[in-house]
Amino acid sequence: MNQHRPVRRALLSVSDKTGIVEFATALSQLNIELLSTGGTAKLLRDAGLTVTEVSDHTGHPEIMDGRVKTLHPKVHGGILGRRGQDETVMREHAIEPIDMVVVNLYPFKETVAKPGCSLADAIENIDIGGPTMVRAAAKNHNDVAIIVNAADYDRVLTEMREQDSSLTQQTRFELAVAAFEHTAEYDGMIANYLGQRTGENSHQEPARFADTLNIQMRKKQDLRYGENSHQQAAFYVESGNTNPSVATSNQLQGKALSFNNIADTDAALECVKSFEQPACVIVKHANPCGVAVADSAFDAYERAFKTDPTSAFGGIIAFNRELDEATANAIITRQFVEVIVAPAASRKAQTIIGAKKNVRLLVTGNWQNGTQQLDYKRVSGGLLVQDSDNAVIAASDLRVVTKQQPSAEQIEDLLFCWKVAKFVKSNAIVYAKDGMTIGVGAGQMSRVYSAKIAGIKAADENLEVKGSVMASDAFFPFRDGIDAAAEAGISAIIQPGGSIRDDEIIAAADEHGIAMVFTGVRHFRH
Amino acid sequence: MNQHRPVRRALLSVSDKTGIVEFATALSQLNIELLSTGGTAKLLRDAGLTVTEVSDHTGHPEIMDGRVKTLHPKVHGGILGRRGQDETVMREHAIEPIDMVVVNLYPFKETVAKPGCSLADAIENIDIGGPTMVRAAAKNHNDVAIIVNAADYDRVLTEMREQDSSLTQQTRFELAVAAFEHTAEYDGMIANYLGQRTGENSHQEPARFADTLNIQMRKKQDLRYGENSHQQAAFYVESGNTNPSVATSNQLQGKALSFNNIADTDAALECVKSFEQPACVIVKHANPCGVAVADSAFDAYERAFKTDPTSAFGGIIAFNRELDEATANAIITRQFVEVIVAPAASRKAQTIIGAKKNVRLLVTGNWQNGTQQLDYKRVSGGLLVQDSDNAVIAASDLRVVTKQQPSAEQIEDLLFCWKVAKFVKSNAIVYAKDGMTIGVGAGQMSRVYSAKIAGIKAADENLEVKGSVMASDAFFPFRDGIDAAAEAGISAIIQPGGSIRDDEIIAAADEHGIAMVFTGVRHFRH
Repeated sequence: MNQHRPVRRALLSVSDKTGIVEFATALSQLNIELLSTGGTAKLLRDAGLTVTEVSDHTGHPEIMDGRVKTLHPKVHGGILGRRGQDETVMREHAIEPIDMVVVNLYPFKETVAKPGCSLADAIENIDIGGPTMVRAAAKNHNDVAIIVNAADYDRVLTEMREQDSSLTQQTRFELAVAAFEHTAEYDGMIANYLGQRTGENSHQEPARFADTLNIQMRKKQDLRYGENSHQQAAFYVESGNTNPSVATSNQLQGKALSFNNIADTDAALECVKSFEQPACVIVKHANPCGVAVADSAFDAYERAFKTDPTSAFGGIIAFNRELDEATANAIITRQFVEVIVAPAASRKAQTIIGAKKNVRLLVTGNWQNGTQQLDYKRVSGGLLVQDSDNAVIAASDLRVVTKQQPSAEQIEDLLFCWKVAKFVKSNAIVYAKDGMTIGVGAGQMSRVYSAKIAGIKAADENLEVKGSVMASDAFFPFRDGIDAAAEAGISAIIQPGGSIRDDEIIAAADEHGIAMVFTGVRHFRH
Repeated sequence: MNQHRPVRRALLSVSDKTGIVEFATALSQLNIELLSTGGTAKLLRDAGLTVTEVSDHTGHPEIMDGRVKTLHPKVHGGILGRRGQDETVMREHAIEPIDMVVVNLYPFKETVAKPGCSLADAIENIDIGGPTMVRAAAKNHNDVAIIVNAADYDRVLTEMREQDSSLTQQTRFELAVAAFEHTAEYDGMIANYLGQRTGENSHQEPARFADTLNIQMRKKQDLRYGENSHQQAAFYVESGNTNPSVATSNQLQGKALSFNNIADTDAALECVKSFEQPACVIVKHANPCGVAVADSAFDAYERAFKTDPTSAFGGIIAFNRELDEATANAIITRQFVEVIVAPAASRKAQTIIGAKKNVRLLVTGNWQNGTQQLDYKRVSGGLLVQDSDNAVIAASDLRVVTKQQPSAEQIEDLLFCWKVAKFVKSNAIVYAKDGMTIGVGAGQMSRVYSAKIAGIKAADENLEVKGSVMASDAFFPFRDGIDAAAEAGISAIIQPGGSIRDDEIIAAADEHGIAMVFTGVRHFRH
């Protein structure tokens, strides 16, 4: 192990030119010889630095428009030579050691996402020499430093200045890990892109799903344990995804998030994001147990809590407005809470929550809707991959199928109720009135029990169902669900429609004088 | 595009030597010059083939114990040269075209899994030249064929024999995609391995979870749609995972599996795997709605069905024994079923199911228990990763906490009930008697409602709760759950224990003369 081997020669060739001139200048000041190629060489030379072209170093010209420039024994022997072992052969072949490689690859995913990028363009842009230098230097990190991230320049320079132009074994190892992460991601993106263009998709539109799915995510934190204490766990996040979510949220205070906290916070946050008005969503065991909209976050919380105070105990509370003093105070004085998440929290609210050291307070910043991502569902030996459920229904999408027309207020409540049902585990039945959930029937194997539970819970909390609206995440297979709703006092129903017995079901609603609208969209969520 | 460019020179260097001698012999018979290195060259020469060593081809010796042998402009210019464009420069530098590259990389994951493989061994084994040839040939697939899978040899030879030693553009493209999949997987495995050894884990045991998570899975099938019809979806499976599961199952008949079919089949199959006795599990909306063990698959089905015939309609039915004629007949004549899955199905059973063309019949082969895999839970912008929940409780693990001791029969039922509760969405309460579920309370935000639902469902199906046992997937926070169980007639309870009110809860059980055992293990499943 060479703890302190000084760097004497560095090869630089970067796509991301952030900070490269400053870094190369600093290397130069440490009397390090700079090898470079192409655009990087020009940039450094323009900055007044002395740079040796790789072709001059190898004595072999760049050929084939740059396809072959660094793939040469003088470069790779210089990178891969084992110091203290290969000196003789290196001398014999006039191979001079290269002690540092600074190479990064252009972001393949972003390049192919550019309008007008053809398959031929994408392929021509695939870098062969770059990944080879990155991988060679990473393999030989015992003797060579490989830097693929501009963010590491400062750290590297600081260490080199303190240690006679050398880096520790530990630093070189960590840089090598980053290097293989970089090449793995790069080839994964290429495989994802090319793998959408095989078979019958080779001469037409790319397939939605490639032959292989290549995912790379970065660990955000190790977790104390998983869903249960005998399961080890960690939380990984997508690099470069800055869309506000539980993954990008900033924890202002409280205990470390648990596995179940993160899952439930995600459910609460994604649900509350779907409302425009000030809203509050309380989640327990992956299901919303109370949701409300109001003129303020405070009122929304007060009403969301009323749906099911028992379940709200130890819940996750999400807002789509800044957490203010009054709301923070109302929560803390009333209930045990695991997590509060909001786009922001006022200073006073933070102070109030600060009195409860364990409560996790997360802020996300403001969000925009409409982001697309893939949803994954794990099964033994595989992964189900699908578009996330981003369907949004507006009043104009509703089809009234009953004689009774819903009032403007009912339509508002129906749309509110529908948004909640989308986030309740299937089969989902939700009762709501005046922008507040009255009963949530979640996760049943038959729809009629979800309806029963919604009714039982409303009754248990002394919430009046009469005049409420009802949402069903999928169609009713039989009229019994409508009959039960009528008996409970439901005045309007929103559901996808599409049952072979729709006529019978509409007739049942007409019999009871219930207004019913079809969305044409189902929201199973298991 | 060069639709029919004959192969004249091939470079072969493989880790997986399956079929390589036969393939090289065939190439040789097509008058193709063979370049090779190391072990592959020796093997081919021993088989009587004429082989040019790469070092003779380049005029540059292998150096540094093989670290640098193919990283030479004569090799990479020969691979990357654009036919019809780069001939002049190739002649100028005496670069001869290489038209086919046959290279595969050793399975990094398996190598590092070998006992005694040190970090230094793993790093020394990282291939630099191989991936570079693979990637270069794949990039230049317009003119060059790259073969990374021995399984492709036959297909390639057939095509070459029919087409004057050439391959179509389409074939070369598909081989190139496989090549990038291969290098992506290779570097992903390296990043996973090295990324467990950074930071505080650099000088001790590797971390359980690496800095980045690199996953590659292979598409098994495109799905008609996802959880809902507005979501596109596909099913991906782990390469090389042969453990019987929904991912490896063989569909003998029926319509294409849907997204929800696959998810529910997985739940049913993993649950039924946990029983030794003949067992049947019926799943609907991700939850077991009926589970039973018996002396035969037939009896197990009869009893599982009785728990909740309403939900069983359109369900997924899983067995841990061969599907026989009588059972197949009982299912088909009684109910609408989406999927039947079993280790095997007799010929007569297949014939019977064959009468219902739409029913999906899956067979998995026999399984062994105890496989480990990572479980993934998607959240917006990230992925929660954990060990799958493989905890298994035996009678000897149970701690009796009440004055009343459970009988041998009760212990059997408690363990049965516990296994079911593990697969019911949390909060889960399961009632069971004589190896059959009596009521399943799934997916509620507070435990008391799960208990209520189990009771309501049992009553609705006229199943007598009196004398049943009860499982709770997590501890009871209050005594009300025990009181309610007593009122329903529950005679014994299994639960993890661990509440701060355990004393109070045990006292409640003692009051009611209920036997209660603690498992010390929780089974949340959301």
